Amino acid sequence: LHLDHATLEQLREWEQSLSEQYTAFQQAGLNLDLTRGKPGPDQLDLSNALDGILQNNYKSSAGVDVRNYGGIDGLAEAKALFASMINTKAEDVMVGGNSSLALMFFAVQSALYQGVNGSDTAWSKESNNIKFLAPVPGYDRHFSVCEQLGIQLIPVSMTDSGPDMDQVEERVKADPLIKGIWCVPRFSNPTGIVYSDDVVARMAKLPTLAGENFRIFWDNAYSVHVLEDNAPELASIMDDCRNEGTEDGVYIFGSTSKVTFAGAGVAFMASSPANIASLTKQMSFSTIGPDKINQLRHAIFLKDRESLKNHMAQHAAIIKPRFDTVLDLLNKELLDCGMATWVKPKGGYFISVDTLPGLAREVVKLCAAAGVKLTPAGATFPYGNDPDDSNIRLAPTFPNIEEIREAMAVFVNCVKLASVRQKQSTQ
Amino acid sequence: LHLDHATLEQLREWEQSLSEQYTAFQQAGLNLDLTRGKPGPDQLDLSNALDGILQNNYKSSAGVDVRNYGGIDGLAEAKALFASMINTKAEDVMVGGNSSLALMFFAVQSALYQGVNGSDTAWSKESNNIKFLAPVPGYDRHFSVCEQLGIQLIPVSMTDSGPDMDQVEERVKADPLIKGIWCVPRFSNPTGIVYSDDVVARMAKLPTLAGENFRIFWDNAYSVHVLEDNAPELASIMDDCRNEGTEDGVYIFGSTSKVTFAGAGVAFMASSPANIASLTKQMSFSTIGPDKINQLRHAIFLKDRESLKNHMAQHAAIIKPRFDTVLDLLNKELLDCGMATWVKPKGGYFISVDTLPGLAREVVKLCAAAGVKLTPAGATFPYGNDPDDSNIRLAPTFPNIEEIREAMAVFVNCVKLASVRQKQSTQ
Repeated sequence: LHLDHATLEQLREWEQSLSEQYTAFQQAGLNLDLTRGKPGPDQLDLSNALDGILQNNYKSSAGVDVRNYGGIDGLAEAKALFASMINTKAEDVMVGGNSSLALMFFAVQSALYQGVNGSDTAWSKESNNIKFLAPVPGYDRHFSVCEQLGIQLIPVSMTDSGPDMDQVEERVKADPLIKGIWCVPRFSNPTGIVYSDDVVARMAKLPTLAGENFRIFWDNAYSVHVLEDNAPELASIMDDCRNEGTEDGVYIFGSTSKVTFAGAGVAFMASSPANIASLTKQMSFSTIGPDKINQLRHAIFLKDRESLKNHMAQHAAIIKPRFDTVLDLLNKELLDCGMATWVKPKGGYFISVDTLPGLAREVVKLCAAAGVKLTPAGATFPYGNDPDDSNIRLAPTFPNIEEIREAMAVFVNCVKLASVRQKQSTQ
Repeated sequence: LHLDHATLEQLREWEQSLSEQYTAFQQAGLNLDLTRGKPGPDQLDLSNALDGILQNNYKSSAGVDVRNYGGIDGLAEAKALFASMINTKAEDVMVGGNSSLALMFFAVQSALYQGVNGSDTAWSKESNNIKFLAPVPGYDRHFSVCEQLGIQLIPVSMTDSGPDMDQVEERVKADPLIKGIWCVPRFSNPTGIVYSDDVVARMAKLPTLAGENFRIFWDNAYSVHVLEDNAPELASIMDDCRNEGTEDGVYIFGSTSKVTFAGAGVAFMASSPANIASLTKQMSFSTIGPDKINQLRHAIFLKDRESLKNHMAQHAAIIKPRFDTVLDLLNKELLDCGMATWVKPKGGYFISVDTLPGLAREVVKLCAAAGVKLTPAGATFPYGNDPDDSNIRLAPTFPNIEEIREAMAVFVNCVKLASVRQKQSTQ
């Protein structure tokens, strides 16, 4: 039954049966969690060989003793591996610690206070009202980096092929204090879409339209996190930037957090060699160097692009059934009833659902009261403010299939219940 | 022969024989390095068991899956271990990544821009001319944190029992924009002295004399790095601060960089529980959490205070002969000749030598030209400016005994040569 075709009487009956079902969920004492994009224990098991993989040989292929100090830009074999992961060159890459968020925070904070290229280029010298574009829905931790550093976030719309580039270009042309844009270009967080070649090409031109010292923050977190064989490839923004002469205008980030160990992987950053030189210099004030032992472990374990691809196929074999469980229940229960829309992702970590306007908070609240934790409504928007109050991010990797089935039964019940009640109240 | 008792003729002969010796060194094509405080490969070997120590069990004692995200303040067993290392409580401790310098930079930068306790307490809001006290000689990387962040460094004198507290107290009372002081309280870098109980007690009162939001940066880098059984203990500044009610006024730092692996150890920070709560909140904007796997490895490997002490005794057995080689040559060649003074350290990583005023640069230059690299003269002072041009930091841990003997032969030759020449030029 489509919501818009239901009679008042049908709505009343519907509400009643949904309410009864909801009460039963509440009484079941569930404790389920679809919030954070955490790998499940079985995914983590895939990389258990990491600890001990060195077999007492702490030398890199170039003979570096990885136990000692030094090498602030990272180990050569780690650079080569990660360059292949994001389709760029090893000399574009610096390899850090366990957190790509730390590299992003570092890059934004350095640009703000110390400058992207010498202290004259510090954004804070230009204005105390620096702004970033935030394609929405997006990743809350990107937004909180800016919020913490006093950078204003301006939402721009996402489409099925990436940010709405007309909006993006218009904004940066109109305001030179817009110094950055947050992007998750492949399997976007949360919508799962992949930026089209055209979007990537227009993105590569952005630094020529924007104010001075503009940077694209290209968080390629899910570059190899494929769920379907026919998942679209992502064009190499570095190639496009080199064609445009804008290679200083992009900072690329990535990590193995969802390849090996979420808390103990290796993060990296890529940009023009000139930027990498400037960034490593900046970084030398705050560390003697990254954990090269963990970098060497990862270089040995993941080896090369082909071996990495095989490893990711093992992840997909584990998590695709979890995604399918979510999608099957959405399809079965919510398709063509006018209550929700969603995108079927071909990779990444999330399924993004849009409820009817004004219901996301209500659905999250109903789910919580029935023992199912969801990412807070609004989290995918700057300042937690989803103007439509409709976007909900589901993260199905951590729970097992049975837990997902239970959680999704509650979720679809709550979406229906909230939708029917809203419809009733407007009749 | 004492320099001051030499006749002109004796000086001439002395210069000639030293010059001949120096020329011979130059021709020997040496390539030796006494610069950085790096552990030697044999020291690093002591901790080789770390990789693989988990034996495929990635659970903490509390059942935390250390492979996954979370736990921004660190693992419970790592907190307990490091609290015992610096004589404080586990709840005072947060455990981070591989770099204590990163924690120091974070702490200074956060205090400057985000505040020590809410944004109203940001030093940058009070003034753009924030200052730190720098006991000299000191650690160059402390100074460069401040230089990078635009914080002015004011040198204060070191004594054999710590910073000259009369100077320190007078300065902070006179200028509320002095917001911090850098301390290496046990086996100070570079002089090797240990702060006396009286100095620690006066330090703990400092926050009551200083301007608002003042912090002591207590870099206890060498807390367990004992070379002699009779090495003086360091009083617990946290105990003293709790007695004074100033526990919010101190940030303590430490790491296992010179306990296990220099580049892949575990760093930590301690302060009042209120400060730790505020700091972990700040840190949550820039990372999901530290590498808990490496923390667990360390907790298992180093186990407890007693086991840590035994481990450090193995380090001492390796490096004490290196320190003795340096000291023996200094004693044999430079004692009572009026050309240099030094402190015999009972722990730590350095031997600090003072040449006659105006000769440190010359000695470092002479050594370099004969193939012996030393830490640049002036590096132990803010802005690289040693007003007496006399302090040279020797780091004897990395080279082997034979290399140290060769390097020190050059060093004493250069000290004598520079001193005799200076004496000649003033006759």
